[in-house]
This record gives sequence, structure tokens and C-alpha cells, in this order.
Amino acid sequence: MANRQYFIERKEVLISYMFQIGFDIGGTNIAAGVVDDSLNILAKADIPFPKGCTCESLSLLLKNIADMFIRENVNLSELDSIGVAVPGSIDPTREHVINAHNLGLHNAPLRACVQTHFQNTPVLLVNDADAAALAELYKGAFVGAKTAVLLTLGTGVGGGIILNGRLFTGGRGNGVELGHSILQHGGNKCTCGNNGCIETLCSASRLAREGRCAFNEDTVTARVVIDAAKAGDAAAKKIFADYVDALGSAVASIINMLDPEIIALGGGVSHAGNFLFDALRQNVSGKSFFSEYADIVPAQMGNDAGIIGAAMLKRNANL
Amino acid sequence: MANRQYFIERKEVLISYMFQIGFDIGGTNIAAGVVDDSLNILAKADIPFPKGCTCESLSLLLKNIADMFIRENVNLSELDSIGVAVPGSIDPTREHVINAHNLGLHNAPLRACVQTHFQNTPVLLVNDADAAALAELYKGAFVGAKTAVLLTLGTGVGGGIILNGRLFTGGRGNGVELGHSILQHGGNKCTCGNNGCIETLCSASRLAREGRCAFNEDTVTARVVIDAAKAGDAAAKKIFADYVDALGSAVASIINMLDPEIIALGGGVSHAGNFLFDALRQNVSGKSFFSEYADIVPAQMGNDAGIIGAAMLKRNANL
Repeated sequence: MANRQYFIERKEVLISYMFQIGFDIGGTNIAAGVVDDSLNILAKADIPFPKGCTCESLSLLLKNIADMFIRENVNLSELDSIGVAVPGSIDPTREHVINAHNLGLHNAPLRACVQTHFQNTPVLLVNDADAAALAELYKGAFVGAKTAVLLTLGTGVGGGIILNGRLFTGGRGNGVELGHSILQHGGNKCTCGNNGCIETLCSASRLAREGRCAFNEDTVTARVVIDAAKAGDAAAKKIFADYVDALGSAVASIINMLDPEIIALGGGVSHAGNFLFDALRQNVSGKSFFSEYADIVPAQMGNDAGIIGAAMLKRNANL
Repeated sequence: MANRQYFIERKEVLISYMFQIGFDIGGTNIAAGVVDDSLNILAKADIPFPKGCTCESLSLLLKNIADMFIRENVNLSELDSIGVAVPGSIDPTREHVINAHNLGLHNAPLRACVQTHFQNTPVLLVNDADAAALAELYKGAFVGAKTAVLLTLGTGVGGGIILNGRLFTGGRGNGVELGHSILQHGGNKCTCGNNGCIETLCSASRLAREGRCAFNEDTVTARVVIDAAKAGDAAAKKIFADYVDALGSAVASIINMLDPEIIALGGGVSHAGNFLFDALRQNVSGKSFFSEYADIVPAQMGNDAGIIGAAMLKRNANL
């Protein structure tokens, strides 16, 4: 019995889990979670984003959230990494947030700032759309895929690319800006300064803008337009059909260029469900250069995408 | 001395080269070459493409060319692989030419057909634009690069993508069709059936078409338009500026999506030299999402690209 007890204790040591903390920093809220090796979120926190914060004060806030997790949910010795997802561009060294307009951070050395509070736990930075793609890879729609593309259809259009079973952050490390590939050369002005970016044609904002115009009503959202189209309103149906045609061109372009195994759509517009996906698949079938091509599916990770993706950064880096 | 002689002979065996035969099959000519491990072309052949040939008769012709090389330039025991580049789509198994309109080949089991003539030498198939990208990787503009994109600006627009230092033939193996990414949603009809493909806006054919229209002259080529623009003709300058603006959007889209280290341009239009590249770099500088981005350079491999790329297929496959 003594021997057996010893064996069990040893086994427990051998299978002991490590944990990751993932932060998903948004312009309104900071979501945080403790994630285990099986990608379960064991504990979560959600606090308002402190407008006007500096890189240092934001880092201190993240430390305080982590300390709470360490007090209540996870031993410091079991904490394997800390990942931080931000809505902005990360420099090729993965040290600086170049621009995160919603956070008011520009050329901010966020990784090093956070790292000062955690001597023995590596801190990693990621763009939030890239984090979402990583979450799909490890737990969502991309599990088992080698080549996959996520498009998030929200206020803007973001996205992430999985290549060779890993997150692709650009050949020079600048990241990928799927929403700013040009879909309509000479088209409408984009927030980035170019004309006709995917974002100008495929964001939820485009649906809302055209809806406000058609219904002459300032409070119309993308959701209102989609619901009206579902209910058979002729103007809304036309707006939605034009939107699907543009999104179909964007998806077909990605297919013709990268031939991914799977394309997942997230963000507000994706909640239109089969009303969107059926029409989109039909549209893409007329535009794909290949007779067999990517599955087009809803993203699965929803609001947890940023936490999970940030938590998986070290695993992805070690591949 | 006897011992020394022995050593030298052994060394000669150890450093003995292997050779590859590369075929570049075009709708007008078949170019073939014997390529050594240092990527020198030791012997070349160029014969007319026999219109109306079958998969079998074409394979026999390739065998006859190879036999000539084996008689005159290379021992069969030193022949390491045979690569065949075709202007068409290859299926994911790399066995069939799905469609090569200029060759009249459709769903043709070309790899197996050629292989029947070479029992111990592997035969590999590749799309010709992919072969050109591979040639740039091993001997041209992409040497040392991990992520690079080639665009060939000819009658159509082709291209190849290098990812992680290897030729990328699509996540599902369908290949990449850079020329059929959509650059102008709702734009002019493309030969593929879509509207506004990169090919409709960035091919030499577009320059020629607009030149014929402006000069009301049926024999105008892209070269005529470029030369007239260089000479200061106002109509030609406008056509060329519009072309550069569209090509700049295509290049910026590739930068914003893949952030490659280098983008090379080949094909007829690229021979415009700095008149093209200076204007293009200026245009892209206003459209790239990133402040530091891909070098934009001329492709270097010219007419040998297909032979060299086809010859490097086995090396690329073994990476």
C-alpha cells in the first residue's frame, strides 16, 4: 500500500497541469481568463478599460488581475505564460503596440511593461484578430486544419491566417491586415486612407450605413438591416444581397490566392446564421476558381476567442 | 601516391553531381534543359509544341528530348529527376493537368504518362508560374527569402507564392491563382467568368486593349503603349498611369495580406524597367498598411525560369 500510494503521488506530479493567463484588451472592457492545457477557462474577469491609461498603468492593472487569479485559482509555479491580445498592430519584434487607436496606445512597449511584473513567466503580445484565429485553431472551427482564414465582420473587418498549422503574422512580421486588402480598386474611401478595402464593403458598418440611408433613420444598425431582410423588406433585401455579393468576392479572392481548407466568419454579421451562410456559399460557388474549395463556416469561439488565443501564444510560438 | 590517388578518386565520387531535366511546355514551344546542382543549364533544346498532341504523344516527345540529353550530356545514372512545367492547373495529387487550354490538355494524367518512360527517375509536374517562382527562389530574386510573391504580367497575370522558404501550392493543393483574386468587385469581365480579377486590370492585354482604343489602331501592343508613354504621349501616359495605379492596388493588397519580404514582377510589362518600377513603388508607398514593407523588384530568371523551376521541383519537395 505504501508503494502504491507513492506511485499515485508520482503520477499526479507527472500529469500536473500548467496554466496560462490570457488577456483580451478592448476599448470598452478588459477580459481575462485562466486557461488550462485542455483549453478550459477556469476563471474569468471582466473589468472596464481605463480610458487614458498609459502603458505602465495598464500593465499594473493586468498585474493586479493576474495576482487575483494567482491568489484564488492558480499557483505562480504552475503559471506557464501570459498572453495579451490588443486591437491594434504589433511590431515585428512582438514588443511594441504600434497603433491601438481604441486604447490610445501608440508605439507603446507593452510587452516589456507587463513583463516587469512577472520575472519568471514569459509575456507575449498578439493582435486580437490573430488571437481569435489561434483560438479557432486550438479549440474552434480550425482544429486539425493546416491552412485556414478567419474574417471578423464587425465595425471593421479583421482577420487572421493559419499557415502550416501555425499563426501566420506576415513574412516580415508586420501582421496581416485582411480587411485592408483592396476589393474594389477606385472604390469608397477606407478609414486607412486607401479606396475600396474589404473593410469598406464587408463590415457591419457598411450594412448599417446603407440601412440608415435607405430607411432615413439614424439608429439603424447592421442587425436591423439583416432582420428586415429576413422579414422580406425589399430595400433591406437589396442591401443585404449587395453585401453578400461583395463578401463573396472577398472570400473567393482568398480562396483563389491561398486555397485554404476552411474559412470561418466571426463578428456581428456572422450571427445572421444560415441566412448569411447559405447565400454566401451560393455566391462563392460562382466565383471560386477551383471546383472543390474551402468550407465556409461560422467562427465558434465567440467572446472567449481573445482570452483563449492569447493563452495559446506560447504553445504556438513553441511549434 | 597509390593511397593518395585512391583518396582523390573517392572524393570525386563523393562530390559527383546529379542532374535534373526541366521541361517548360508552352503553347508555342517546348523548352528543355539539363540543369546541374548549381543551377547551371548545361544543355538546352527548343522545339515547336505539336498542336493537337495527346498526353501520350507529348510524353513520347519529352522522352525523345530526354534521350538526346542522355546520349549527349548526362548519364542516366546521374539523372536525379525530371520536372515538367505546364501553363495550366494541376490537381492536388500532382498527377493530372486539369486544364491547360493552350496545350489542349484537359484532365490529362501527364505525370504518369511521362513516368512510364523513366522507370527509376521521378517525374514531377508543376504549373509554369509556380515553376517561375521556384526558379526565382533558387537562383533569382528570391534567393534567401522565406516569404515572396511573383506576379507575371503577360497576356494574363500569373504568379507564385513562396512561404516558409518553399513553393506554396495552396492549402488544399489546388494551386494559387493570384491573377484571379478580385481587385475591382463589379469590374470588367475576366476570362475566368468573374468580374474585376487582377488579370483584367494588370495584364499586358489591358494596356494593349486600351491602347488600341485610344489610338484607333488594331496592331497596338502593350509595348507600343509603354514606349509612347515614355516618349511623353499624353493618351499613353494616362493609360499607363491608370495601369500603374491598378497594379499598385494589387501589390498593396498582397502586402497587406501576406507582408512578403519581396515581390518580383515578371512578364512582358516588367520589361518597361524603372519607368514602371519607380512609378509603382511610389504608388504602393501610399497604399501599404505598413511603414516598412516588401521590396518590389524585377524578376530575374527570364526565359529560363520554367526550365530551372521544373528542375528544382524535387529539391523543393524534399524540403
